[in-house]
Amino acid sequence: MSSAVTNEVGEPPAELKSPKHWIIGDPLPTEHLEGQLLPKHLALPIFASDPLSSVAYAPQELLMILMVGGLAFLSFAPWVALAVIVLLVTVVASYRQLIRAYPSGGGDYEVAHRNLGEKAGLVVASALLVDYVMTVVVSVASGVDNIISAIPELNPFRVEIAVLFVIILAAVNLRGVSESSKAFAVPTYLFIGSVFVMVVVGLTRTVMGDPPVAESATYGVEPESLTQAGIILLLLRSFASGCSALTGVEAISNGVPAFRRPKVRNAQRTLVLMGGIAIILFAGLTAMALISQVHYAEVPCHLIGWAECDTEPQPSLMAQVAAATFGGSSIFFYVIQATTALVLLLAANTAFNGFPLLGSVLARDSYAPKSLSTRGDRLIYSNGVVILALAASVILVVFQANLTVLIQLYIIGVFVSFTLGQTGMVRHWLRELSLRRHPAGTAKRPPTRPDDDARPLSQGAILRALVINAVGAGMTAVVLLVVTITKFTHGAWIVFVMMPILFFLMMGVNRYYRDVEKEIEVDPTTTFGATGDHAIVLVGRMQKPTLKALDYAIAARHDSLEAVHVSIDEAATKKLKKDWVKQNIHVKLRILSSPYRDLSHPLIQYIKNRRQEHGSEVVTVYMPQYIVGHWWENLLHNHKARRIRQKLLLVHGVTVALVPWLLDSSDLIYGRRSRPLPGQDRRGEPVRAVPRRPITEPQGTGAGPKRGR
Amino acid sequence: MSSAVTNEVGEPPAELKSPKHWIIGDPLPTEHLEGQLLPKHLALPIFASDPLSSVAYAPQELLMILMVGGLAFLSFAPWVALAVIVLLVTVVASYRQLIRAYPSGGGDYEVAHRNLGEKAGLVVASALLVDYVMTVVVSVASGVDNIISAIPELNPFRVEIAVLFVIILAAVNLRGVSESSKAFAVPTYLFIGSVFVMVVVGLTRTVMGDPPVAESATYGVEPESLTQAGIILLLLRSFASGCSALTGVEAISNGVPAFRRPKVRNAQRTLVLMGGIAIILFAGLTAMALISQVHYAEVPCHLIGWAECDTEPQPSLMAQVAAATFGGSSIFFYVIQATTALVLLLAANTAFNGFPLLGSVLARDSYAPKSLSTRGDRLIYSNGVVILALAASVILVVFQANLTVLIQLYIIGVFVSFTLGQTGMVRHWLRELSLRRHPAGTAKRPPTRPDDDARPLSQGAILRALVINAVGAGMTAVVLLVVTITKFTHGAWIVFVMMPILFFLMMGVNRYYRDVEKEIEVDPTTTFGATGDHAIVLVGRMQKPTLKALDYAIAARHDSLEAVHVSIDEAATKKLKKDWVKQNIHVKLRILSSPYRDLSHPLIQYIKNRRQEHGSEVVTVYMPQYIVGHWWENLLHNHKARRIRQKLLLVHGVTVALVPWLLDSSDLIYGRRSRPLPGQDRRGEPVRAVPRRPITEPQGTGAGPKRGR
Repeated sequence: MSSAVTNEVGEPPAELKSPKHWIIGDPLPTEHLEGQLLPKHLALPIFASDPLSSVAYAPQELLMILMVGGLAFLSFAPWVALAVIVLLVTVVASYRQLIRAYPSGGGDYEVAHRNLGEKAGLVVASALLVDYVMTVVVSVASGVDNIISAIPELNPFRVEIAVLFVIILAAVNLRGVSESSKAFAVPTYLFIGSVFVMVVVGLTRTVMGDPPVAESATYGVEPESLTQAGIILLLLRSFASGCSALTGVEAISNGVPAFRRPKVRNAQRTLVLMGGIAIILFAGLTAMALISQVHYAEVPCHLIGWAECDTEPQPSLMAQVAAATFGGSSIFFYVIQATTALVLLLAANTAFNGFPLLGSVLARDSYAPKSLSTRGDRLIYSNGVVILALAASVILVVFQANLTVLIQLYIIGVFVSFTLGQTGMVRHWLRELSLRRHPAGTAKRPPTRPDDDARPLSQGAILRALVINAVGAGMTAVVLLVVTITKFTHGAWIVFVMMPILFFLMMGVNRYYRDVEKEIEVDPTTTFGATGDHAIVLVGRMQKPTLKALDYAIAARHDSLEAVHVSIDEAATKKLKKDWVKQNIHVKLRILSSPYRDLSHPLIQYIKNRRQEHGSEVVTVYMPQYIVGHWWENLLHNHKARRIRQKLLLVHGVTVALVPWLLDSSDLIYGRRSRPLPGQDRRGEPVRAVPRRPITEPQGTGAGPKRGR
Repeated sequence: MSSAVTNEVGEPPAELKSPKHWIIGDPLPTEHLEGQLLPKHLALPIFASDPLSSVAYAPQELLMILMVGGLAFLSFAPWVALAVIVLLVTVVASYRQLIRAYPSGGGDYEVAHRNLGEKAGLVVASALLVDYVMTVVVSVASGVDNIISAIPELNPFRVEIAVLFVIILAAVNLRGVSESSKAFAVPTYLFIGSVFVMVVVGLTRTVMGDPPVAESATYGVEPESLTQAGIILLLLRSFASGCSALTGVEAISNGVPAFRRPKVRNAQRTLVLMGGIAIILFAGLTAMALISQVHYAEVPCHLIGWAECDTEPQPSLMAQVAAATFGGSSIFFYVIQATTALVLLLAANTAFNGFPLLGSVLARDSYAPKSLSTRGDRLIYSNGVVILALAASVILVVFQANLTVLIQLYIIGVFVSFTLGQTGMVRHWLRELSLRRHPAGTAKRPPTRPDDDARPLSQGAILRALVINAVGAGMTAVVLLVVTITKFTHGAWIVFVMMPILFFLMMGVNRYYRDVEKEIEVDPTTTFGATGDHAIVLVGRMQKPTLKALDYAIAARHDSLEAVHVSIDEAATKKLKKDWVKQNIHVKLRILSSPYRDLSHPLIQYIKNRRQEHGSEVVTVYMPQYIVGHWWENLLHNHKARRIRQKLLLVHGVTVALVPWLLDSSDLIYGRRSRPLPGQDRRGEPVRAVPRRPITEPQGTGAGPKRGR
C-alpha cells in the first residue's frame, strides 16, 4: 500500500524541477512531503503586503487630521509620527515574543484563548473577522484613490471601480490562486523599492537646496477654532489615524508554520525586517510630505485657493509627493501610483487568505462549523469568500469608498486583538515564571507545541519578554482607548455592534456542538439489538440503475427481499409488470397504490405496517443514486430520490442503501485538477494532489461481458 | 390502511367549518378529497386582478402617445380605443374556444406545443416566462406610480419603493400564501366597484352640464412635427400601447382545473364576465380622461404651463380623473388610488403564482428540471420565486421604475403567446374537421383529456370556432407586428435577446434528459451479477450513532462484517480501541493509518485492494447520518460524511447504507405545518396535509429498555 501512496502524492511538483529555480536556490528538502515552505525572501512579500501597504494611507490620514486645526498644527506632525513609530517598534518587539511562545500559527486568537480564557479568545476572533472585512475595504478604497490620483477622469466611478476590484479578488480566490507564486512577490518589492527611491531622491534634492514642492503647497487651510481640550483631542485623533500604519503587523505571527526551518528564528527575522522597512517608509513619506508642503484636507473645499475643489478629486498624499519629486507626468510618478495600487490590492487579497485560515482554527475549537476545518471543502470555503466580498462591497457602497471615513472603522478591531494578544502573553510569561519557581507547583502550564528551535528560556529572557509584552499590552490598550474615544461617533460604533453579534454566533455554535456531543455520547441505559433483516428495492421504471440496485440487494442475501413499486400512473405500472416478466426477475414485485400521487407516503406506511408485524426488524431500502459530472446536472437529477430518502430516514428501523449509478458525464470528475486553497501558503500546507488516475479497478476481475457501472 | 389515509388527509380544513362560511355559501362537496375548488365569485378576482389592473395604465399610455403629436391628435383617441376594444373582444372569444378544447390548464403553451410542434411551444414558453417577469415589473411600477400620485412626497423613493414591494411579494410567496383566501378577492371587487362608480359619477356630471375638469386641462402640449408616415406610426404606437389592456386575459385559460364543475362552462362564463368588465372600465376611463381633458405627456416638461414639471411627479391618469371627479383631497380620491395600487400589487402576485405553474408543465414535458413538476419541493420552488424577484428588481432599477419605458418591454411576450396559441387553435380545428370528414383517415388526432362537460361538437360549431380563432390569430399577429415595429428600438429588443436564451436553455434540458434516458435504458448487452457480500461499518469515535450503525449491520447478517477506523489522531485511535473492548463488541475493528490526515483515501484504497482479491463482491459501507430539525444545523453537520460518501460512491461495487440518527432537534420537523404553494389555487390542488402525528411506532413492540433512535 505504501507504494501506491507514493505514486499519488510523492511526485514533486513540476515547478520544483524547472531550471529557473537555480535563481532562487534549490528547493529545500521537504519534511514528510509537506510541500514547499517559504524562504524569507518570499515570506516577506507575502506577509508584508498588508502591513507595508498601510504606509500608503497612514501618513495622509495623520497629517489630514492635524490640518483640521490649521497649517500651524503641522509642527506637531513629527512628534505624532514619532509616537506611531515608537508604538510600531513596541508592537514588533511584542510579536517577536509571541512568535517564539506560540509558533503554531494561531496568533492573537490562540494566545488570548489559552491564557485569558474562551471569551477573550472569541472577542479577538470577532475583532479579527471584522478586521479582515475592513482590510479588504480600506485597501481597495485606498488603491482606487491612488489610481484616481493618477487618472482623475475615473473619479465619477470611484465606488464602481472599488466594487469591481472586490469582485475580481473574490473571483480569483474562488477560482483558486497560490499566493506563494513569485508574481505576488514582485509588486511588494517594487513598492518598497520605488517608495524608497522616491524618499531618497526627495531628501537628496532637499539637501542640495532644491526641495520638491507639492501642487497643494500654495493652498491655505481654513482652521477650525479649537478649545484646549479640542487641541488635545485633535492630536489624539491624528495619532489614532496614524496608527493605521500598524495594521497587518500581526500577519507573520499567524504564518509561522509556513516558514522554513528554523521557523521561529526565520519568522522573527522577517518580522523585524518588515518592521524596519515599515518605519523607514512611514517616516520617509511623512518627512517628504512635510518638506514638500502637501496640504491635504478632510473636506477638499476647506483648502483655500483651490478653485476646482468640488469638481476635481483631491490627489492622494502619495501622488502629491511623487508628483513633486519626479514631476506629475513623469514615468516615475505613474510607477509609484501603479505599484501603490497593486500592493494595496495584494493587501486586500491577504484578507481573502486569512479569513479561511482563521475559520479553520475556530472550527478546530468548535466555534465555527466543523467543515471549515476540513481542508478542501471548496463549497464551504467559497461561501466564506462570497460573504467576505459581499460585506466589503456593501460597506464600500454605503460609505462611497471614502477612505477617510472607512479608516475610522478599521483600526478598532486591530487594536482589540493587539491588546488582548499582548495581555495574554503577559499572563503566559507570568505562568512560566511561577512554573520555574515552583516546578512541581499548582500552576498549570498551558501545553505549547514542540517546535524545531524551541529551547528552554533562561529566567532573564523570560523576564525581558515579560517586560516587552507588558509594555506592548499597556501601550496598545491606551491606543485602543484613544481610538475608541476619538472614532466612536465617526462610525466606529458599527464595529461595536458587529463584534458582539459575531461573538454570540460563535458561542452559539460552540454550545450547539457541546450539546450534540453530550446527546450522542454512549451511555449505559441506551441499548441496541435489532433482529430481523428485510430488504426493499425501490423500483420506478425498468432501467439499468434499478437493475444494478436489485443486483446488489440480491448479492447481500438478506433474509427476505422484495421489490416495491409505488403506482402513480396506471400505464407505467402495467408496463413495469410486463418488463418484470420479460427480464425474468425472480424477486417478488409488490405494487403499492398511491391515490394522491405521492411516492413516499404509501412506502412509509407499508414499512411501518410491516414493522408492526415483525417487531424490531431492520429494513434496508435500496435506492439508485445518480453520480453526475457537473454541478448543474444535480439541478436535473435526484430530487425525488432525495426527498424520499429524507422521509425514509425518519422512519424507525430503516436504513437507506445508496447504489451509485455513474452517468457518462461523471467521467469528468476524474479529470479535475486540484486548485490551491486560499490561506494554504501561509499555513505551510502543500496542495494535496487529487489522483489523476481514474479510480477504476483493473478490468480483468469481473465476470460477464460488459458490466454495469 | 385506508383508515390511516383518511385520518391523515381526510379531515376537512378547519376554515371550511367556520360559521362565516354561510356568507359565501356552504363548501361544495369535494371530489375525492381533492380540496376546495373555486366558485366563480372567487375565481373572478383571482384570475382577473392581472387583466383588470391593466386598465390602470392602458388608457394613460394610449393617450400619452397620441399627445406626442399635440392635443389635436386626441380626436383619434376614441377610434384607437375602439380598436383595442375590438381586439379585446376577439381575444376573449378566441380564448373561449381554447378553454373548451384544452381544459387541462396548459394554456397557449399546450396548444402551441400540441398543434404547432415542440419549437412553437417553447417559443410560447419563453415568451410567457419573460411575460411573468414583466407582469411583476409593470404592475409594481404602475402601483407605485399611483401611490406617488396620491402622496407626491414619496417621489424621490420611486425605485426603492418598487423594489421593496417586489421583496415583500417574494417574501410573502416564499412564506406561502393561499390565493383563494377572501382577502385576495376584496381589493379586486373594490377596484371594479370604485372605478365603476367614478365613471358613472363623472358621466352623470357631464350629462348634467358640469363635466369634471382635470388639473392638467389648462396645460398645452408641445407637438412634435410629424410627417404623414410619422402620423401613422404614432397612431400605431398609441394602439400598441393601448393593447397593454389585453395583458393577463390568458390567465383563466391556464386555470380551468381550479374551477368548479362544470369547469369549462364556468371558466368560459368567468372569462366573458371579465372581458365585459375590462371593456367597461377601459372605455369608461378613456372617455372620462377625454371629457375631463387630462393632458399627460411622455416627457413632463413638454406640458406648456406646468411650472413644476421637473420637480413634481406627474399624477397618473387614474389620479387625475379621480381628482377631477371627486376632488383631489376627498376620501374617494384616496380610495381610488389605494384600491388601484392594491389591485396592481395583486396582479404582480399572480406572476409569482403563474411562474411555478408554468414550470411544472414544462418539467412534465422534460423542458425544465423534473423537480419543478413535483409539488412540494419548496427548495426548488423558492429558487423560482427568488429568480423572478431578482429579475424584476434588476429591471426596475435599470429602468428606474419608469412605467412608460417598461410598457415597451411588456406586451411583446403577451402577443407572441397570443398569436402562437390562436394559430395552434386554428390548426386544432382544421384537424378536427378533417377527422370528421375522414373518421378513419390518416390525420392523427392529438389526445385531449376528458372533462366532465366535454361533449361532441357539431360541424357548425367547429367551423364557427375555427373562424373565431382564425380572426384572433390574424389580428394578434398583426398587432404583434405593429408592437414589434413600434417598440423594438424603444427597448423591446431586450425581450428578443432574452427569449432565445430561454428557448435554448429549455431545449438543452430536454436534450439532456433524452440522452440520460437513452443511457440508462435496459439493453441486452449489459448484465449484472455481483457475488459476495462484505460489510464495513465506518467508525470514528465510540458514540451512539456508531453503535446504531453497527447494530443494523449485524442485524443484516452479511457474509462478512468488520468495523473500519481511519486513524488520524494517535490518541483518539487508542481511546477507540479501549472503548471497543469496554463495550464488548465482537466485530473485528480494523485500523487504517492515514499519513495525510485524509479519511476517504485509505478507506477507498482498502476497499479496492479487497475487491482485487475477492472479485465482483458487493461492499456495503454503513455510515451514520444525522437527521436535524433546522436547516442551519445542516451547516454544522454531515460535511465530512457527505464528502466521504461522494467519494465512496465512485468506487466499483460499493453501496453506502445510511443509518439515520435523529438528533433531539429533529423532533421539530414533525410539528411543521404545510404551507400553500403558489399556483396551488389556480391549479385546483388542495394543500397536502403533512401528518401532524409524529411518525413513530407504538412503543410496545421493541425489546430492551430504552431504544436508540
